[in-house]
Amino acid sequence: MSTTHNPYAPNPSDFISNVPRFEIIDSTLREGEQFANAFFTLENKIRIAKALDDFGVDYIELTSPVASDQAREEVETICKLGLKNSKILTHIRCHMHDAKIAVETGVDGVNVFIGTSNFLRQHSHGKDMSFITKSAIEVIEFVKSKGLEIRFSTEDSFRSDIVDLLNIYTTVDKIGVNRIGIADTVGGANPRQVYELIRTIKSSVKCEIETHFHNDTGCAIANAYTALEAGAKFIDTCILGIGERNGIVPLGGFMARMVVSAPDYVKSKYKLNKIRELENLIAEIVQVNIPFNNPITGFCAFTHKAGIHAKAILANPSTYEILNPTDFGLTRYIHFANRLTGWNAIKARVEQLNLNLTDDQIKIVTQQIKKMGDIRPLGIEDVDSIIKDFHSKENEIVLDDELSSNKRQRVD
Amino acid sequence: MSTTHNPYAPNPSDFISNVPRFEIIDSTLREGEQFANAFFTLENKIRIAKALDDFGVDYIELTSPVASDQAREEVETICKLGLKNSKILTHIRCHMHDAKIAVETGVDGVNVFIGTSNFLRQHSHGKDMSFITKSAIEVIEFVKSKGLEIRFSTEDSFRSDIVDLLNIYTTVDKIGVNRIGIADTVGGANPRQVYELIRTIKSSVKCEIETHFHNDTGCAIANAYTALEAGAKFIDTCILGIGERNGIVPLGGFMARMVVSAPDYVKSKYKLNKIRELENLIAEIVQVNIPFNNPITGFCAFTHKAGIHAKAILANPSTYEILNPTDFGLTRYIHFANRLTGWNAIKARVEQLNLNLTDDQIKIVTQQIKKMGDIRPLGIEDVDSIIKDFHSKENEIVLDDELSSNKRQRVD
Repeated sequence: MSTTHNPYAPNPSDFISNVPRFEIIDSTLREGEQFANAFFTLENKIRIAKALDDFGVDYIELTSPVASDQAREEVETICKLGLKNSKILTHIRCHMHDAKIAVETGVDGVNVFIGTSNFLRQHSHGKDMSFITKSAIEVIEFVKSKGLEIRFSTEDSFRSDIVDLLNIYTTVDKIGVNRIGIADTVGGANPRQVYELIRTIKSSVKCEIETHFHNDTGCAIANAYTALEAGAKFIDTCILGIGERNGIVPLGGFMARMVVSAPDYVKSKYKLNKIRELENLIAEIVQVNIPFNNPITGFCAFTHKAGIHAKAILANPSTYEILNPTDFGLTRYIHFANRLTGWNAIKARVEQLNLNLTDDQIKIVTQQIKKMGDIRPLGIEDVDSIIKDFHSKENEIVLDDELSSNKRQRVD
Repeated sequence: MSTTHNPYAPNPSDFISNVPRFEIIDSTLREGEQFANAFFTLENKIRIAKALDDFGVDYIELTSPVASDQAREEVETICKLGLKNSKILTHIRCHMHDAKIAVETGVDGVNVFIGTSNFLRQHSHGKDMSFITKSAIEVIEFVKSKGLEIRFSTEDSFRSDIVDLLNIYTTVDKIGVNRIGIADTVGGANPRQVYELIRTIKSSVKCEIETHFHNDTGCAIANAYTALEAGAKFIDTCILGIGERNGIVPLGGFMARMVVSAPDYVKSKYKLNKIRELENLIAEIVQVNIPFNNPITGFCAFTHKAGIHAKAILANPSTYEILNPTDFGLTRYIHFANRLTGWNAIKARVEQLNLNLTDDQIKIVTQQIKKMGDIRPLGIEDVDSIIKDFHSKENEIVLDDELSSNKRQRVD
């Protein structure tokens, strides 16, 4: 295997794949506002919008201006910020009432949605498919007449009838919608199901496809990736994945996925070293902790512990790392203070401490450290003091030897 | 669509799918011990093993008895617990030295592994494929001669040469290994890649396939699911997904995925209402918080906030829930104290408070609540006092009306 070959690169047989040319629609200021703990003041909305723009997301989606008077003012204010990288969208119901308000706010585009599954048609809005189609056409033509981008999305697409979906999507495609949206609103979809649905729809429309994946069953990032393979282009994300219930595709985790598969595209387009700042900002505002196991920024994402891992990582970080911590402004950590440690990790520590020990000596002190690790948790200081202690005793022996040898010489 | 149809059920065209008959190999006591924060005392190892057995995992994998003297004693002690549901495995290097120690501990089976990728062959053990094959045969025949189950796994399978993989797997299959293991050791694999590799290998061997997916790029659960679709049967998990770096497939999140696709199998086999206890136990021992967005047990996993969601959930929980909180011993929460609330959510709260208000009155008080929510975050108490205040004023008006009508009657 050549070292330049990337086994995680886009599948060469996927001619329609958008893995190396996806775009991000960040919905922290819409879906994220539906997170249980989210209460965004205008000031915080501005901070978040500016941070997303600086990071380089392609679109920022905002809560509907119809939600409240304050929501409308917020949309108008964010549209006036003059962001450099990100276009502004707002997310509204498929109603003329909502559309008329939305187009007056200054947004670049409007994301309309309506539920098409039996569940939502019965228990949410109570409308049938012909009514849905009629509303969709009216709203789309109106928004287009104002010169704005328009996306039409079905909610709960994976529990909708495929005939209904193809009917409505091909209809809105003919009217000239910019994007259609496919949403796993309840978070139950799995990757191959996503691939099949998106590819089927992609073969029936000319417009681009946006996707929205909830994370109830832990598949949101993988579903987003598979959707790109099937020809979708736009992925909805939120910082830390916040949203209804346990949220949607997290921006940081999605970047971890994409930088492995399309490193040049991702690194040239998005400021990956800002992910930690973005996540800290949101964690502070919505008062949550960064999950301990978060991709990239979880406290242990680049920590290596088992002796066998540490040994290989010290020889070549690619052995046990598919992500390079420096791409994210972070550093690697070899966890050597534990009973699973190995002598290679301890050797690296001995060198950091600027001490001289032979490999055989390091193997002996490693056994001492592992024994101590069996008895109790070890801190770095514990290991350092065992090493230093061992080193000074070994040196005393050497000194003693030298002294006695000197003595012998003098005697001789 | 019939209400009994499950769109998230196994793909009917997957004849080799093991989605409705998978087994769990929990590795909290091996992979999980490699988590940065893990220091398991024997007492805690016993608590964890008993809790996993009670939950119903099929296998429990333990750290190699070669790791330290204490590790060996722990394996022996756990083998003597007399667990009811779970067989005990230990995870060792593909060395006769390790195998000889492992078979003496009382385990039901041995999981051996060796790195086959160029990366690991160069920078970890430095052995070539013919050496690897020779060691594998020797170790497997020895373990089998002792009457124990044996799995042979390659580390870093997705960066290994497919010819090397097929060579070694077909060889060990012929010797009669029980399972082969396929590991995404660096966490870079994606679902369709997993499907293709597993299906290819499955078509070449008679034995069962076990998989081990790291979560560096957020795809571990989805990769595990897709592996089952391709014919793998055994999935490695850890409680809360703890392990090297940001860990592997989390047991709870994996259950969320599987209960959606194979509800009868999962509910009859595993005690889902114990997931919260299992996760709390580990969180306490390794001193982490349950991630806010954890599937099932994250604090907001069953919280609904937006007005449109709350309305539909109140009519039928399936509208916005693919998981039923009662399956996990948990409850649903409709978040009504915020500016995105709707009158259906407030109506439900009015009914909980045992107050009488007409729909029109509830719509008015909902507007008052949304206005207040624009100004500051709302607590439940805030909303309740707005509702009660409104209710008593409305009643005063009614009383006033009744009084004046009485007066009028008296005047008349």
